[in-house]
Amino acid sequence: MRLRHKPWAKDFIQKHSEYVLTSVPNDTTWQDIFQNDQPLYVEVGTGKGKFLDNMSVKYPHINFVGIEKFESVLVTGVQRALDTQPDNLKFIHSDVNHLLDFFQEGEVDRLFINFTDPWPKKRHEKRRLTYKTFLELYQQVLRPDGEIHMKTDNQGLFEYSIESMSQFGMKLKNISLDLHRSNIEENVMTEYEEKFSEKGERIYRLEATFPRK
Amino acid sequence: MRLRHKPWAKDFIQKHSEYVLTSVPNDTTWQDIFQNDQPLYVEVGTGKGKFLDNMSVKYPHINFVGIEKFESVLVTGVQRALDTQPDNLKFIHSDVNHLLDFFQEGEVDRLFINFTDPWPKKRHEKRRLTYKTFLELYQQVLRPDGEIHMKTDNQGLFEYSIESMSQFGMKLKNISLDLHRSNIEENVMTEYEEKFSEKGERIYRLEATFPRK
Repeated sequence: MRLRHKPWAKDFIQKHSEYVLTSVPNDTTWQDIFQNDQPLYVEVGTGKGKFLDNMSVKYPHINFVGIEKFESVLVTGVQRALDTQPDNLKFIHSDVNHLLDFFQEGEVDRLFINFTDPWPKKRHEKRRLTYKTFLELYQQVLRPDGEIHMKTDNQGLFEYSIESMSQFGMKLKNISLDLHRSNIEENVMTEYEEKFSEKGERIYRLEATFPRK
Repeated sequence: MRLRHKPWAKDFIQKHSEYVLTSVPNDTTWQDIFQNDQPLYVEVGTGKGKFLDNMSVKYPHINFVGIEKFESVLVTGVQRALDTQPDNLKFIHSDVNHLLDFFQEGEVDRLFINFTDPWPKKRHEKRRLTYKTFLELYQQVLRPDGEIHMKTDNQGLFEYSIESMSQFGMKLKNISLDLHRSNIEENVMTEYEEKFSEKGERIYRLEATFPRK
């Protein structure tokens, strides 16, 4: 992802705490925050937030939360939210490593990993958002039969993720090795996905669940 | 696979029992048949046998057995064996469903599934050689940490196989979604693979192991 430095981004995020949280008090659930008991879907590495923004419009009876550590991209999602004023969408400005500071155990119904950084060098394996330490975090915040839905255009990251999830004992389903030439229903595209699929590049997709503890 | 009817094939196979078996006595192991204790690698749906023939030359200290039900293709493998006279290669003329009639429990060290019929129609799912009933057979004849190595050019079969193996509890590794544009070592090609990869089509590959019983 190309990052443009935006010196005003930090201030902007702090001023819009109605859409961006930087912390959640220990005893607070997302049902408290959204003030309803709708299902909770979370996207890690949410970038400019277009996927979640579209999802929140399409599925008004689900609550969406996106986590992003780079404020210079996160501001785009926040600006869009300020325009459209969704009541089922929030952002978290934080690293995915801190997931447990923001969610209770089993609180999340579904988790999205869309077009995240592939970190292709072997020595950066631990930074890939499907490395086992991240899977451990997801397992804690997801409800037992909660699903991870992953999309990427990066072949290497997808190969790695299948292996990493499989070695973790996860079960995989609804795999597509060429999403835009498959029989897909209801696919909501991310900004990357629009760009890559227009070029005719393959989009890879999977769904995964954790083994019972 | 295109099948040409060869009326002489049945006779030919019966005459060459030194290379093609149609049964194995109950108490006979493949160490008895090969008269040595080399590892045993098996290919299901071996077709014309080119992969196994190349493998048997490249790896003389491994024994190879290919199972094929269509005699009209199997004869090509047998003819080649009669030319090159390998002492570490045999064929079985039988359906893969009868695998347990030919192998003892845990006798097989590795199992290959190369470019088998994708049976794309949902109602033919049970015929795909990675359907769960076949995985159960493989699990019985493979030693506990024995690996399945699969290759195919068929995207649908590969997606299906990842899901089927994953739902069975198998662990996947060394996945390639484009084998001939990956860093591959020591890839021995099948006849199909040569044809498809020359056309620039993708070859998919995986390795899988069964969960501990």
